[in-house]
Amino acid sequence: MTSVTLPVPTDFDPPPGADVRRRWLEADRAHRPERRARLRKRLAAEGIDAYFGVKPEHMRWLTGFTLGAGEDAVAGHSGQFLIGADEILLLTDSRYTVQAKREAPDCTLEEIGYDLPGAWPRLLGRLGARRVAVEATAVPHSLWTALLTAAPDVELVPAGSWLEEMRAIKTDDEVERIAAACAVADRALATLLPEIRPGVTEHDLALRLEWLIRTAGAEALAFDVACLAGPEAALPHGAPGDRPVLDRAVLLFDFGAQVEGYRSDMTRTLFVGEPVERDLAVYELVARAQGAAIEQLETAVRDGGMPNGRWLDGTARAVIDADGRWPAYGHGLGHGIGLATHELPRLGRQAAETPLAGPTVFSVEPGIYLEGETGVRIEDLVHADPGRRLLERLTHFPRDVIVLPA
Amino acid sequence: MTSVTLPVPTDFDPPPGADVRRRWLEADRAHRPERRARLRKRLAAEGIDAYFGVKPEHMRWLTGFTLGAGEDAVAGHSGQFLIGADEILLLTDSRYTVQAKREAPDCTLEEIGYDLPGAWPRLLGRLGARRVAVEATAVPHSLWTALLTAAPDVELVPAGSWLEEMRAIKTDDEVERIAAACAVADRALATLLPEIRPGVTEHDLALRLEWLIRTAGAEALAFDVACLAGPEAALPHGAPGDRPVLDRAVLLFDFGAQVEGYRSDMTRTLFVGEPVERDLAVYELVARAQGAAIEQLETAVRDGGMPNGRWLDGTARAVIDADGRWPAYGHGLGHGIGLATHELPRLGRQAAETPLAGPTVFSVEPGIYLEGETGVRIEDLVHADPGRRLLERLTHFPRDVIVLPA
Repeated sequence: MTSVTLPVPTDFDPPPGADVRRRWLEADRAHRPERRARLRKRLAAEGIDAYFGVKPEHMRWLTGFTLGAGEDAVAGHSGQFLIGADEILLLTDSRYTVQAKREAPDCTLEEIGYDLPGAWPRLLGRLGARRVAVEATAVPHSLWTALLTAAPDVELVPAGSWLEEMRAIKTDDEVERIAAACAVADRALATLLPEIRPGVTEHDLALRLEWLIRTAGAEALAFDVACLAGPEAALPHGAPGDRPVLDRAVLLFDFGAQVEGYRSDMTRTLFVGEPVERDLAVYELVARAQGAAIEQLETAVRDGGMPNGRWLDGTARAVIDADGRWPAYGHGLGHGIGLATHELPRLGRQAAETPLAGPTVFSVEPGIYLEGETGVRIEDLVHADPGRRLLERLTHFPRDVIVLPA
Repeated sequence: MTSVTLPVPTDFDPPPGADVRRRWLEADRAHRPERRARLRKRLAAEGIDAYFGVKPEHMRWLTGFTLGAGEDAVAGHSGQFLIGADEILLLTDSRYTVQAKREAPDCTLEEIGYDLPGAWPRLLGRLGARRVAVEATAVPHSLWTALLTAAPDVELVPAGSWLEEMRAIKTDDEVERIAAACAVADRALATLLPEIRPGVTEHDLALRLEWLIRTAGAEALAFDVACLAGPEAALPHGAPGDRPVLDRAVLLFDFGAQVEGYRSDMTRTLFVGEPVERDLAVYELVARAQGAAIEQLETAVRDGGMPNGRWLDGTARAVIDADGRWPAYGHGLGHGIGLATHELPRLGRQAAETPLAGPTVFSVEPGIYLEGETGVRIEDLVHADPGRRLLERLTHFPRDVIVLPA
């Protein structure tokens, strides 16, 4: 059994200071004209006059308007935007107008209240738009229908994943923020380690880990902390409960931080008390699968190339299948991450077979789940930049077997 | 100036114990067959064979399957359901199958992975459905189109707000949970009061209030805590920042708790240091507007009737308009609340002019916002039951002017 000295908080980078954060926000402002120009070029090539965007990550990336994670459920049309050839119309209702003025000073504010179909013909008239791309994967069918009815002579076209593809490619300042979010998460788990012992509940550890993340450099969680003890770790998206940490069983944490909008995502499966042989074997197999995928990725990137997401998923899956003792994960090997927790690229059995575009950041997270018994997943973020022939892990928390005292 | 003894945590009900919570979950199980029967009756009346639901609050209300607030963004189709005449099909992917078995044991699990259109013809065939109601206000247009393409001979019909209307009417066990969530929030703010002083930041107070809610009876926030100091209170949906609490200015908290799925929502505007005359006058006007609306509501309910949501909004607005010094709130007077933070009924200038259906629970939250200067909102939840001629406030934190020492 491998054993390591437990990581401590000072092993990881401290949270960024105000000067660094200011530089990132300036970088955002500097990038926006170029992002808008690229989208407009793409729209022109498709014969489209305007783009109607509703996803919070697109709002922030293109306009600067920021909606918190829960906020989009109640924000109505606020923050939604129309990009025309010369102008960006940012929609608000009276609740959000002050914020929109502050965060998106170079957009034209349109205080439309709650009735977008009522304002739609006027907005399109202002932009001179006759053919509009709409984010059909996020716009509800009922709104689509109402917009069609409001301006029947304007053609609505489902938007391609143009912005998603643009956002998958990360600038250095974006990667820095993801790395900073990884470091906040790494430090938080290292801080929590001495508090983990049999009997403490999943819920209490999850809450404590959240607190450590949100009081030491992150403005928010990337998503709710999962803390799952023993057999619960077989639920790849389980929620922490009043179940206690068990002696001689696994304890799985899946969590992430958000730093200046950008997110991290990591999973560690720890052992509390002397591991049982099967759990240890499962862990070592998952670690081997992850190592194989990252090694193959590194080989490609050092050659200036990139693998495709289906093949890379297969390299990890093959290790578990070849071993033959347990079934491989049912989910995909990984996902891109940035302003959204799950974004392009996709890595999985159904992923595209075209090479991943870089520079990009994604998770590598194979797992094995034995229902009613145990579960192991190991998840790191990697930054792959084929242009620089650079492959780096952004998650620095050790991947070795970590055995905590019972 | 009115002045009160500051409320203390013991002024409010303690969080419910395990026995009460168990009773609520049993009540849910007992209610579900009747809820499903009512929906099926409605579907039959509309000539519809099946209902495709995707909203997390509908999942929980009809099937028991529970998605956390952030979880629905990554859950794919898991938890979405099809109700046919005799059977409920609950969709999952491998990540959620164990949870679905546990939480919805009387539903038929369909592990469809991530490809709903691929499974759609088989699922409809199983239910014998040729005409399907779809939650068009929540289903993305792209999914609607893909489902149509997958089974072109099956008619898709935008679902009416049948479930929303059913859920607006609350059973006693549902009202008890909303009241419990109100009490958790009341207690948390009372606990926080001694920690509020000039110089502490909005962000730190919001985080502390969240912690008090989540460690004393609530499983989650109902939504992100808003804590806004001085001029920031003019942003009806502002987010807390690094701005300090100011002497001689308002401090607005808008927040809620979630207890066994049910939510609360309250706003209090406090004074730190001796209030300036204008702020006090704004506060007293908003309090008067709220009092007028609740008094009118009470009169109607004691007569065994209910007002409509547009008229009730008008009663509060009229008080502010008649005064004439400041503009009334741009948002609506209130909203229903339950498994979702914002649900039916609606109260506002565009609300329906039919009497509200009861028994129901909603917020009454007039405000006045003076951009760059100050903002005041007072929000309580009320439970209106015309059958019992009962009108009660569920929010018990005092509405008097509260002046905290500077």
